[in-house]
Amino acid sequence: MSRPLKVALLGCGTVGREVLRLLDEQADDLAARIGRPVEVAGVAVRRPIHHGDVPAHLLTTDALSLVTREDVDLVVEVIGGIEPARSLILAAFAAGKSVVSANKALLGEDGVALHAAAAKAGVDLYYEASVAGAIPLLRPLRESLAGDQLRRVVGIVNGTTNYILSRMAETGAGFSEALAEATELGYAEADPTADIDGFDAASKAAILASLAFHTPVTAADVHREGISAVSATDVARAAEIGCTVKLLAICERVTESKDGETASDSVAVRVHPAMIPTSHPLAAVGGAFNAVFVEAEAAGQLMFYGQGAGGQPTASAVLGDLVAVARNRLAGAAGQGTTGYANLPVRTMADTPTRYHVSLDVADKPGVLATVAQEFARHDVSISTVRQDGHGDAATLVIVTHSAPDAALSATISALREMPAVRDVTSVLRVEGLT
Amino acid sequence: MSRPLKVALLGCGTVGREVLRLLDEQADDLAARIGRPVEVAGVAVRRPIHHGDVPAHLLTTDALSLVTREDVDLVVEVIGGIEPARSLILAAFAAGKSVVSANKALLGEDGVALHAAAAKAGVDLYYEASVAGAIPLLRPLRESLAGDQLRRVVGIVNGTTNYILSRMAETGAGFSEALAEATELGYAEADPTADIDGFDAASKAAILASLAFHTPVTAADVHREGISAVSATDVARAAEIGCTVKLLAICERVTESKDGETASDSVAVRVHPAMIPTSHPLAAVGGAFNAVFVEAEAAGQLMFYGQGAGGQPTASAVLGDLVAVARNRLAGAAGQGTTGYANLPVRTMADTPTRYHVSLDVADKPGVLATVAQEFARHDVSISTVRQDGHGDAATLVIVTHSAPDAALSATISALREMPAVRDVTSVLRVEGLT
Repeated sequence: MSRPLKVALLGCGTVGREVLRLLDEQADDLAARIGRPVEVAGVAVRRPIHHGDVPAHLLTTDALSLVTREDVDLVVEVIGGIEPARSLILAAFAAGKSVVSANKALLGEDGVALHAAAAKAGVDLYYEASVAGAIPLLRPLRESLAGDQLRRVVGIVNGTTNYILSRMAETGAGFSEALAEATELGYAEADPTADIDGFDAASKAAILASLAFHTPVTAADVHREGISAVSATDVARAAEIGCTVKLLAICERVTESKDGETASDSVAVRVHPAMIPTSHPLAAVGGAFNAVFVEAEAAGQLMFYGQGAGGQPTASAVLGDLVAVARNRLAGAAGQGTTGYANLPVRTMADTPTRYHVSLDVADKPGVLATVAQEFARHDVSISTVRQDGHGDAATLVIVTHSAPDAALSATISALREMPAVRDVTSVLRVEGLT
Repeated sequence: MSRPLKVALLGCGTVGREVLRLLDEQADDLAARIGRPVEVAGVAVRRPIHHGDVPAHLLTTDALSLVTREDVDLVVEVIGGIEPARSLILAAFAAGKSVVSANKALLGEDGVALHAAAAKAGVDLYYEASVAGAIPLLRPLRESLAGDQLRRVVGIVNGTTNYILSRMAETGAGFSEALAEATELGYAEADPTADIDGFDAASKAAILASLAFHTPVTAADVHREGISAVSATDVARAAEIGCTVKLLAICERVTESKDGETASDSVAVRVHPAMIPTSHPLAAVGGAFNAVFVEAEAAGQLMFYGQGAGGQPTASAVLGDLVAVARNRLAGAAGQGTTGYANLPVRTMADTPTRYHVSLDVADKPGVLATVAQEFARHDVSISTVRQDGHGDAATLVIVTHSAPDAALSATISALREMPAVRDVTSVLRVEGLT
């Protein structure tokens, strides 16, 4: 074989160390699959302290010099965050190196510019590890399903929130209690904001939507609600209607025809907790697992399931990409990039069709249901089911709506809160996957 | 844009017609994704009769002239079966055309030779549609997971048998009854042999094992048992131990160390009905759906789920491949092929470690369990659990073994059948996925 392909590794945390371990352990297999041995040229770290088994001569704090070094062929970025990752990746492209990244925040924020820079330099940018860890997902979206029209991509893409919601469902605990448990067991970070407020899921939703709909979507375009407002009552109410609560990243292509005119398509991307039927394939995805459900015109329903985080699964995805970009480099051609050719408009949340589950405590007297139903009608929201349970002079109304613009639904809820007959709105949550 | 890429379509059945429909309906999207419009150069059919909407001037019975025509860039083969598909694909390669095929029988029988011919000609051979319909599976195996070491691939890859077994579980029906229902509803073909005897699943297992383990495996290497011997009793017994019966395609890498010597790896590939725990992700895969469960060293457990058959899902997979080979052609490079570099030995079934569930009617008198247990021990088979239910002068013994070579297990069963104390062996089935 000819000279080894040289890889610059940026970052040496949990994922970086696993990448190094696999590069070493699977050296023979990788060489056979690529057609050349792979060698680590250097490892860029913030501080030149001892990093486990990493030979000291490979460590450097000068990441920029490393990525632009003449003998480096490929760059693996597992630093995370926006800077210095972005500058280093752009420098790598400018120096003609292909990049494998696991950086969801950066790709979610600035994917378009990064792809453009890679295309201009004629190199590859692969980032399978950025969404749903080891689950092969981005490549199927951008390649295997390239001959199909995608309608929806709905994912459980954040293990921390899924663990918390799973525990709430299992134990009846409230959010704070379940979060405390997750923190203690190491499933939630000391500062869990990025996870529980949905920032992490929103970055991933942006990446998925961009690939699925050939349309540039950034995290800022994604409507985002976290799970801190999900109550034990919400979870119990969900169970009563045969549902379970999940934090979902939802990417949809919405087709609309106005007054008989030609249909115009747009894209809606959102992250929020929602009730889904327990019979839905995503409902059974528990604990720290991830899963992504895809609906395509011709392919129908697909689901991808696996471990969404952790050093080893993430490193597996990084190495899969590394084999691909290495082979592309040897073949002298960049691989299949992304295309934003469709460039569909992105809808606002207010304008996005959703369905609501609402639970109300009302006075148990004749005419209350009629008054409440009228309020929904006044906002042009059609009701799918109502259940009324009387108890003493009070009653509980559980209402599931049909699909309506989110603004109409939330205006209905505000109006209900003001109604004298409504003592309390005890639970409001969107519903997905009902037929 | 430059001149269109021209596609020769071989076969115009259910899948072929869907391919034509999608090529037409999605023409603009495909052109944008590929970078050039795609045009159908001709459609090879057996008889030049009317084929739905296909323009008569595109139809030809001379498939060989079509695939070798100067202006044809790519060939899509959806004829199925061994000949003339093989000769036509080889002719296409020799003429420098890349091929997309949905042909599991051919790939399962002769994948090695076809890959060699494609590599020699510097063209692509893609066949995502050959296994599990629209589920992106082969590309993830050969690309996304290329940096990982796969341990097992276990799939429900035949919708007909899965439908029959699902119905048996739901209704308590026997095999013949469930098959009759499946035939009536169109889930089983008039001659269901390829499905129910496991030939279809064996071809797919060979394709999966070849990709997963970088080792040439043909359908002839696959141990194959169908579902016609699965009884209502087997299904009921499975339910009693918290299991369900599925026809599984199982591809395993078996690592063995003999007498402290270095471990040597081999590959075991088999198709047979087995009990799996209802908690296993594959257990919930019902009806005509397919799913493939993958275990990799670093990635951990993954599952791919979706529609395994039908014109539209299969056509979606064909088109995804078509986009890939078209882009490769425009880039002037063939895509990632398969590598058989590992070339691991393939184990015989006799030598493959499996676990058995056995159900026995025995005389209910002291010492019977001891005698039965001794027979297992004599064959070096260790017992995991035993349940004994007495009823009158008879008793039922339900035994689940630990893992042992399949030959030892089947020899044990033969010996049990001869034992005077054993009145009847009422159910024997392998068990998978128990921990």
